[in-house]
Amino acid sequence: MSVDQAAGKLPILIRMSPADNVAVVGNSGGLGAGTAIPDGPTLLEHVPEGHKVALRDLPKGAEILRYGEVIGYASRSIPRGSWVEESLVELPGAPGLDELPCCDKVPPRMPPLEGYTFLGYRNPDGSAGTKNLLGINTSVQCVAGVVDQAVKRIKEELLPRYPNVDGVIALNHNYGCGVAINAPDAAVPIRTLRNLARNPNLGGETMVIGLGCEKFPPESLAEGIAAADILTLQDRHGYADMVRAIMERAETHLKRLNDRHRVPCPVSDLVIGMQCGGSDALSGVTANPAVGFASDLIVRAGGTVLFSEVTEVRDAIGRLTSRAANPDVARSLIREMKWYDDYLENGQADRSANTSPGNKKGGLANIVEKALGSIAKSGSGAIDGVLSPGEKVDRKGLIFAATPASDFICGTLQMASGIQLQVFTTGRGTPYGLEMIPVIKVGTRNSLAEQWPDLIDVNAGRIASGDATIEEIGWELFKLILDVASGRKETWAEKWGLYNDLCLFNPAPVT
Amino acid sequence: MSVDQAAGKLPILIRMSPADNVAVVGNSGGLGAGTAIPDGPTLLEHVPEGHKVALRDLPKGAEILRYGEVIGYASRSIPRGSWVEESLVELPGAPGLDELPCCDKVPPRMPPLEGYTFLGYRNPDGSAGTKNLLGINTSVQCVAGVVDQAVKRIKEELLPRYPNVDGVIALNHNYGCGVAINAPDAAVPIRTLRNLARNPNLGGETMVIGLGCEKFPPESLAEGIAAADILTLQDRHGYADMVRAIMERAETHLKRLNDRHRVPCPVSDLVIGMQCGGSDALSGVTANPAVGFASDLIVRAGGTVLFSEVTEVRDAIGRLTSRAANPDVARSLIREMKWYDDYLENGQADRSANTSPGNKKGGLANIVEKALGSIAKSGSGAIDGVLSPGEKVDRKGLIFAATPASDFICGTLQMASGIQLQVFTTGRGTPYGLEMIPVIKVGTRNSLAEQWPDLIDVNAGRIASGDATIEEIGWELFKLILDVASGRKETWAEKWGLYNDLCLFNPAPVT
Repeated sequence: MSVDQAAGKLPILIRMSPADNVAVVGNSGGLGAGTAIPDGPTLLEHVPEGHKVALRDLPKGAEILRYGEVIGYASRSIPRGSWVEESLVELPGAPGLDELPCCDKVPPRMPPLEGYTFLGYRNPDGSAGTKNLLGINTSVQCVAGVVDQAVKRIKEELLPRYPNVDGVIALNHNYGCGVAINAPDAAVPIRTLRNLARNPNLGGETMVIGLGCEKFPPESLAEGIAAADILTLQDRHGYADMVRAIMERAETHLKRLNDRHRVPCPVSDLVIGMQCGGSDALSGVTANPAVGFASDLIVRAGGTVLFSEVTEVRDAIGRLTSRAANPDVARSLIREMKWYDDYLENGQADRSANTSPGNKKGGLANIVEKALGSIAKSGSGAIDGVLSPGEKVDRKGLIFAATPASDFICGTLQMASGIQLQVFTTGRGTPYGLEMIPVIKVGTRNSLAEQWPDLIDVNAGRIASGDATIEEIGWELFKLILDVASGRKETWAEKWGLYNDLCLFNPAPVT
Repeated sequence: MSVDQAAGKLPILIRMSPADNVAVVGNSGGLGAGTAIPDGPTLLEHVPEGHKVALRDLPKGAEILRYGEVIGYASRSIPRGSWVEESLVELPGAPGLDELPCCDKVPPRMPPLEGYTFLGYRNPDGSAGTKNLLGINTSVQCVAGVVDQAVKRIKEELLPRYPNVDGVIALNHNYGCGVAINAPDAAVPIRTLRNLARNPNLGGETMVIGLGCEKFPPESLAEGIAAADILTLQDRHGYADMVRAIMERAETHLKRLNDRHRVPCPVSDLVIGMQCGGSDALSGVTANPAVGFASDLIVRAGGTVLFSEVTEVRDAIGRLTSRAANPDVARSLIREMKWYDDYLENGQADRSANTSPGNKKGGLANIVEKALGSIAKSGSGAIDGVLSPGEKVDRKGLIFAATPASDFICGTLQMASGIQLQVFTTGRGTPYGLEMIPVIKVGTRNSLAEQWPDLIDVNAGRIASGDATIEEIGWELFKLILDVASGRKETWAEKWGLYNDLCLFNPAPVT
């Protein structure tokens, strides 16, 4: 990256690769017409923050290069110094999946990073939680109203007596009945629910509330669950008895959870999810590369990192298959892309459905440019494994967990895969939060950090303004991850109690 | 229906049509082997409540008749007095959609019913609410965490000052971004959200919380909405400012809502939704026919009744096209069936995906038997109109509102269509409730009413035991609808605060 700063007005134009013929404005207010960039063009018009400037004359049909890759073709002749706005960038075809590179650029193993630990709750299955929560699972959406009322009373009447327990959460969702449970794609929501119940932050204390007549059997939610931990509302004598029974059973688990304390755990016990939402053109310049640097640190320290969002890696898939640790991983990456291509086509949509008006306002011309910035979250290491949506992670290292890009579906699926903490980058800004795990929000630009001082945990905008390096923000984030995982620091979302509901991915029909 | 009761043990066998060769056990504990039915068979084995008894010898392949219709074929020879359990009933093919009867049995208009009114809140658009609620709409799921916290504070700090307002609800949902918003089927969730905002129970006081970068534009949620009623979180200075702004705007609406009082309204202002969930074989014998009787009363009094659940009318569709008021209505019914057939096939499922284990345990052998019982909710009148999922009702009378059968999706879609109260029948039992409208729960059997005395509002089981007629329960329900709509009586779900979340129907892909 070259950050050009003139002495006076300090215009900032950011180029990601020497081959690029466009660069992105880093200044909060954009740059005005007539601004002269040292060793660069003079702007012919105002260009907003995060948007692209033509570094040379681009004839109609010319390749537009960012990150050293073709992000599109000039829809008309674009003079040097122009704003290369969205309508000037013609979307290239998606890369084919049949002749992708395979394992040709596998990075060498990075040197191990030693000496870092966090304070976690050790679980019976060997995993460790970053929180000590009682999760009340549900096998069907019918029970949600009763479970919500029971959780309210548990929080008011029981929780104060168990101060080592961080909270009680209802795992409500919209699955379990009224769905085609034998359709092939029903496997996705079913394994998601089963694996959510096993999230390390729930301490292995599993209870399930079922109705009694649903399609999804409560006993299948958790293998080997004790009969006493399944409460079937149709077996109870009315509402009051339902609430009483749930509270009674919850207290058994609260007692056990309350006996636990944080103990030092190696970073190899951590599974961290990386996600972005409300992206802009700076996402791939500031926040995502810094997150990528932190990803490398976690992997070097023996931990596990999940990155996701199929439609946001699809157009950069060749860069990932090149980094696949072995051909199996490359084939699995391609399998997940193919599945999603078919899924979108089946619904008469395609990858262009991804970019939002906010992405575009933030300077992202299309899904190719968005994807090239998005994959920066994965850092620079070899890709060690691939998970289908909702599968539980089964190895250490850098993993691609295939999920939709929807923030809430991705978050839910990553929690099913076993993350105990999520890092979420945002350019446009979203107040996203999850109840089961802490979410650290990383902003892409100084102006967002200034506007949302009580929501953005880490300001990566300092990279664009030259006030910090990617490495510095990467280390800051790595240390914050350990602090939050240890309960030493609280995220803004935790402080305000900002929690989005679980949102299952159900590609199968409802009935 | 013939209810056979012997003097001593009072065995109850219920036959729905003289042509039927099976009948259903009405006794709570079922009937034991050796029980002699007067003018009927002697039971060869124990038959549970709601399950079928063979009234004569049925050779392998014989038609099994209930409601005078073929519900299946004997999978082996079934002797008279046997339990005709699920595995003995082979599912017939779905009725074809090309040669259905059309308007051949349109019932004559029933005599008008006069002299009934309810006390409702008159709205600016001429509709009337059964509640006086402030609804806080959201254009995207990203804002849910902030809106939940704001609503909590509004309830605690503002609502006590506005005693005529019944409540404040967040219309959170999982749509707005991360979805293929231009896919053809996206029309369904989009119109659902728009029409939910217009529900009569929200008093025409519309405000929308948006994020700012989402695909679904907040201003398109409510036509002609004032700019001040759209709060965009990305325009606010952090979390505290977001909550303050939401509370401030909410108070403007609370003031106006608080000035309203209930006024006498004709029944023609009512739009009542009929739904069933957790059905059993008595659903079509007791609760649904009683609901059908009440439906007729509402329509006779000038009101509107919606019945729904495509997969639960599909196998009885010929009975509905026969009752269509005109060929347009018949064609629209067929169009909705066809759409759903394709939707299920696209997901590699079919109509057999509907019945749940609980349905079967309750005596329903398959979807044909379930559908024949389900359509009883529509009463006996002509069908005046058809709505696609989430469309707003545009006429009075008896309307088929096409929805999935999932209780929560059907409830959400019916509320979008404009219902101000729902009647929900259940055999197995579910604690279902909705926050935007009152839900009256009607149980199908005495044993459920005894077991859930604090959840079931009307016990239609008395019909099976001979303690009440369909007409009596129908009138009781009709009067209870007027009482609940007037705020004179409270349903159990309202008393306990049992509310299921909104659940959108999105047949389009997520991204």
